[in-house]
Amino acid sequence: MRIVMKFGGTSVGDIDRIKNIAKKVKKSFDSGNEICVVVSAMSGVTNQLIDYVEQASPNYDPREYDAIVSSGEKVTSGLLALCLQEIGIKSRSFAGWQAGIETDGANSKARITNVNAKQITDYMENGGVAVVAGFQGINIETNRITTLGRGGSDTSAVALAVGVNAGRCDIYTDVDGVYTTDPRIVSDAKKIDVISFEEMLELASLGSKVLQPRSVEIAMSHNMELQVLNSFEDKPGTIIKNEDENMEKQNVRGITAQKDEAQITISGIKDKPGVVANVFEPISNANINVDMIIQTTSVDGETTDITFTVSEKDTDLAIRELKKAKDKINYNSLKSDKNIAKLSVVGIGMRSHSGISQTMFKTLAEKGINIKDIATSEIKISVLIESDYVELAIRALHSSYNLEK
Amino acid sequence: MRIVMKFGGTSVGDIDRIKNIAKKVKKSFDSGNEICVVVSAMSGVTNQLIDYVEQASPNYDPREYDAIVSSGEKVTSGLLALCLQEIGIKSRSFAGWQAGIETDGANSKARITNVNAKQITDYMENGGVAVVAGFQGINIETNRITTLGRGGSDTSAVALAVGVNAGRCDIYTDVDGVYTTDPRIVSDAKKIDVISFEEMLELASLGSKVLQPRSVEIAMSHNMELQVLNSFEDKPGTIIKNEDENMEKQNVRGITAQKDEAQITISGIKDKPGVVANVFEPISNANINVDMIIQTTSVDGETTDITFTVSEKDTDLAIRELKKAKDKINYNSLKSDKNIAKLSVVGIGMRSHSGISQTMFKTLAEKGINIKDIATSEIKISVLIESDYVELAIRALHSSYNLEK
Repeated sequence: MRIVMKFGGTSVGDIDRIKNIAKKVKKSFDSGNEICVVVSAMSGVTNQLIDYVEQASPNYDPREYDAIVSSGEKVTSGLLALCLQEIGIKSRSFAGWQAGIETDGANSKARITNVNAKQITDYMENGGVAVVAGFQGINIETNRITTLGRGGSDTSAVALAVGVNAGRCDIYTDVDGVYTTDPRIVSDAKKIDVISFEEMLELASLGSKVLQPRSVEIAMSHNMELQVLNSFEDKPGTIIKNEDENMEKQNVRGITAQKDEAQITISGIKDKPGVVANVFEPISNANINVDMIIQTTSVDGETTDITFTVSEKDTDLAIRELKKAKDKINYNSLKSDKNIAKLSVVGIGMRSHSGISQTMFKTLAEKGINIKDIATSEIKISVLIESDYVELAIRALHSSYNLEK
Repeated sequence: MRIVMKFGGTSVGDIDRIKNIAKKVKKSFDSGNEICVVVSAMSGVTNQLIDYVEQASPNYDPREYDAIVSSGEKVTSGLLALCLQEIGIKSRSFAGWQAGIETDGANSKARITNVNAKQITDYMENGGVAVVAGFQGINIETNRITTLGRGGSDTSAVALAVGVNAGRCDIYTDVDGVYTTDPRIVSDAKKIDVISFEEMLELASLGSKVLQPRSVEIAMSHNMELQVLNSFEDKPGTIIKNEDENMEKQNVRGITAQKDEAQITISGIKDKPGVVANVFEPISNANINVDMIIQTTSVDGETTDITFTVSEKDTDLAIRELKKAKDKINYNSLKSDKNIAKLSVVGIGMRSHSGISQTMFKTLAEKGINIKDIATSEIKISVLIESDYVELAIRALHSSYNLEK
């Protein structure tokens, strides 16, 4: 099988670890696989380079940032190619631009537009292991280096896997796979063997930091099977793939929480057409993303309250913008609460099973946890609660849904 | 004027020094010059990368070595571009391959074959300062990064100066310029204001480490004026240019010494046609460079002695090879002496003045220094002496030729 293997920063933290990675690659190669490896920078290197950039220019030009910061991955790719050669494997390194990873011009957060993978494919077909510097590409219009932003090596790996038509893309990390919830909170959280792309996307975008959401999106849209596994051990991880008839349809696959949200409530808005647009116009103009929105109308029908969430770091800006627009929106009062968390349960089985949300509400009620807001999608239920209760809530729900089994 | 400015490792040792370089560049730019800057890696970075390479693979693939080691200069070029932007100068960095520096495929010691400088020239003509990563290029046949070997940033700078048709190439170092001899040996050694390419080449190849000989060769063959000057001060350095009618024809421009040579003497060789070829065949096959050669024939004309010098590190290998070839060469004895030094006086005035060598021999004789071997060229006299006497000899000659005036 043709496989893309991706190793992150801690997996390639020093030369000894890179040598261990080389042995892992050799084992898979010797068993008959064609292999392309994608690597991150050695841990600490990227931060050092970013520190240099910020010292040189606090409001730096992102094109120069990319030219500088992309060098870390190039070093790792060269070193891994050397370690592979040293144990008898034909190998060479490719910078992102040499590997044909083409991106748009959004420096420091570029998107891959095309992978021109012929050279990599040829190299693998001629018996070599291609080692590609992750996290980077080239804007072919300007011939300048771009980077994909933090965590972009996952995206490089998946895009390359699609480009070389691989059978699977294995993402090696420092955890064993994707868990039913954070094992630091629930000690008997279970590793999930198989999960669908949609579930993984919900979990990834809701704060499970195992995979970058963008990489899952690309994998889903090209039906590229992923595996998340531990680079320091030798056992299977979590497979992420399209939902199919053989996949067990768990009602709840996992539970995740986000603490970095804040809630803003605008009360006593004169209810008339266009009021919601008036509220969100200043927020949108300030480039603030809004997550959950709830609107409640007063009994007399004359005023309305709007509650919504934004990320914690944007809260103060949002409040300032709303105060500036007070006359236009015409409201009584404005308050914000940073002490909240969003708790979500995710599972494709929800589509065909009722009662999932009822179990959630009942479990939280039994623990005396107040629900401030609710949002649902086809495969997810999210609630806002006071953030002090997050761990308690996760443990109770994990047990109610029997996820430890 | 269009100028290429090159800054070495100590000049760009940390962010503060890079900021100082930026000010120096701005000063020249503001006075109306078009500027391309070539930079080395921050001091220590290249050694760290080489250490990684050697840990990964003791007999490393030089192509991977180049991919890895070339990253240091890319980081510096990006940082200098940022520091220039920060003080209001339009600037961008170029990796060697982006700057159009094309080389042959001799990785880790590549030679520049062409400079496709259109992009750099356009950038300068549009009011920007181009900052190019030195020491590196690209082999366009394989599309792989190459490096020019240690000191290669000088060569990058001169080749770029030729490529962009610059008026001068300024090489900034940690010394004030080229001196009549090593100021650590002769305290009143004088900075030379103007020197010819030929003189500089002799001095550079004979151990004055200010400029890489290859860079002087390129400058000479394209008549590109060079200046060596101090990056930490603000005063003129040494101009290196074609000899012309206005240039003062010093009999002796400078004195230099090389201590890393060794002398090998083969005695009692049966003198017959082809004997010299027999002696040097094994040396040449072992890729050992021979410097000075002297042959003395015995009075009876039946045997001959051959003395020659090689670099100290090659001595043991040369002796081993000659021992293996004893029967073929047919000699009596073989001896080597690592305790020697080559002392040279250089000056274009020698061509038209006699007595230069006589002054040398007389001065050394007065100090009781024995001359073991002599070699001369049009603008240079070299002698071999016991290495313990080198400093004494340099001081005496510096005074005899009145170089302190």
